[in-house]
Amino acid sequence: MHTSPIVIKIGGGEGIEIAPILAEIAQLVRSGQPVVLVHGGSHETNVLSARLGVEARFITSPSGHTSRRTDRATLEIFEMVYCGKINKAIVESLRAQRVDAIGLSGIDGGIWRGKRKDAIRAIEEGRTVIIRDDLTGTVEHVDHDLLQMLLANGRTPVLTPPAITDEGTAINVDADRAAARTAAALGASELYLLSNVPGVLRDPANAGSLIARASGDTLATVRDAAKGRMKNKVLAAEEALLGGVGRIVIGSANGANALTRAREGAGTVFEGAML
Amino acid sequence: MHTSPIVIKIGGGEGIEIAPILAEIAQLVRSGQPVVLVHGGSHETNVLSARLGVEARFITSPSGHTSRRTDRATLEIFEMVYCGKINKAIVESLRAQRVDAIGLSGIDGGIWRGKRKDAIRAIEEGRTVIIRDDLTGTVEHVDHDLLQMLLANGRTPVLTPPAITDEGTAINVDADRAAARTAAALGASELYLLSNVPGVLRDPANAGSLIARASGDTLATVRDAAKGRMKNKVLAAEEALLGGVGRIVIGSANGANALTRAREGAGTVFEGAML
Repeated sequence: MHTSPIVIKIGGGEGIEIAPILAEIAQLVRSGQPVVLVHGGSHETNVLSARLGVEARFITSPSGHTSRRTDRATLEIFEMVYCGKINKAIVESLRAQRVDAIGLSGIDGGIWRGKRKDAIRAIEEGRTVIIRDDLTGTVEHVDHDLLQMLLANGRTPVLTPPAITDEGTAINVDADRAAARTAAALGASELYLLSNVPGVLRDPANAGSLIARASGDTLATVRDAAKGRMKNKVLAAEEALLGGVGRIVIGSANGANALTRAREGAGTVFEGAML
Repeated sequence: MHTSPIVIKIGGGEGIEIAPILAEIAQLVRSGQPVVLVHGGSHETNVLSARLGVEARFITSPSGHTSRRTDRATLEIFEMVYCGKINKAIVESLRAQRVDAIGLSGIDGGIWRGKRKDAIRAIEEGRTVIIRDDLTGTVEHVDHDLLQMLLANGRTPVLTPPAITDEGTAINVDADRAAARTAAALGASELYLLSNVPGVLRDPANAGSLIARASGDTLATVRDAAKGRMKNKVLAAEEALLGGVGRIVIGSANGANALTRAREGAGTVFEGAML
């Protein structure tokens, strides 16, 4: 019997404790549920950048989306952390829990292909500037054949940025949106975007202001409430919905049974029926 | 028609210029020859260790084999360099040259499985000591099914340490010997161990003292002449021969047409017929 895979993305922000949720994922996979895991590594990249004396910089677009300023030196540090340290630590942990994990970046096998942005509008000290040498972009195509071949083989892919252009240039991409694309390409039934926040908050300073449902009526509210990196998650959730993923939850990666709770609806839930 | 793959290992020592040989490998793959590429990263690991203020240490066994002293902090740095920086740079370069490269460490999918050495005899300041907490070992099993599936799919696997134990612990392994195991497991016809030296030298200080053939008569000479890291390469070549690989060349990764020259026999050649 073919079981539709679920896609779980664990953020790389500060304060995410990954061991408990990996244990939940391992249990889920051992129960027979195919999973594709996607992870970030933002905070650790900042830490390594600081240790190496390379300043981590961020770009804010006029619409308020933020992304890492990625020159070649930054991309190398990024790959060391995302593809080296974090990806391999996750694969090692899952394998120790009897999951046949296989770690891949989006450049490997061209799993995540996209275009580099050749001009980025950014706000710097109140002025709009154009940045032309940034190695960032957006995933436009997912090699679902390779992922399905691995899933059919009993493997659990553990995916991480960067992605790659058709010309063969590595590009930093938003991992939430890449996870959404992946979920849509695989016909996944569920997508979980889990990080160090409980979901979309009306007031980012107040964890009690969670918006539990992003339905037709409240979608505008959710979009308005999302600031900074949360804007990318809401955009990712909407893209996944449009791509046919039945259920998306933006929720917390932390705490006991974080995955189970997210699957039960803890967080901000987007559902296909709302469209 | 099934073409037997060839395995090429490029060392990670100081002074290896990788771009020209990657161009040769890309051309070879595009011509229809399946290739598995294995790489090291020793020098870059030393450089990053120094930048991070973590001392790189090496162990010399009583028989003269050397290996990196690998505690958990060292393993993290090792993974950042081998699996992050170098592996992804190679994959990116090959993809830009129209090769469908896919980068994997030995832990991914359990491609390289082995045992951790739970006690290592080492010479420290002239005395033999026992080290028990080192994360090193030897590859004993290669998942050739996964590699063959990828090769049959037109992919070019780019492999790098670490390997992993059956219990799920990442272990640093010698990449030359892992390449030899891989070549044997895949039924490869040829194995190239290319680095910053032209082959096995009678006198390491004299590049003109190359031993061109390791045949029955000269094998003892080759074993005696090999010092330090070269001992591992000779051991790897012998293991590959015993594993059925027809032809092994220990040669240089540098200079114009390094791969072509190695295929023509430049370096120290081991051939099956000699056994």
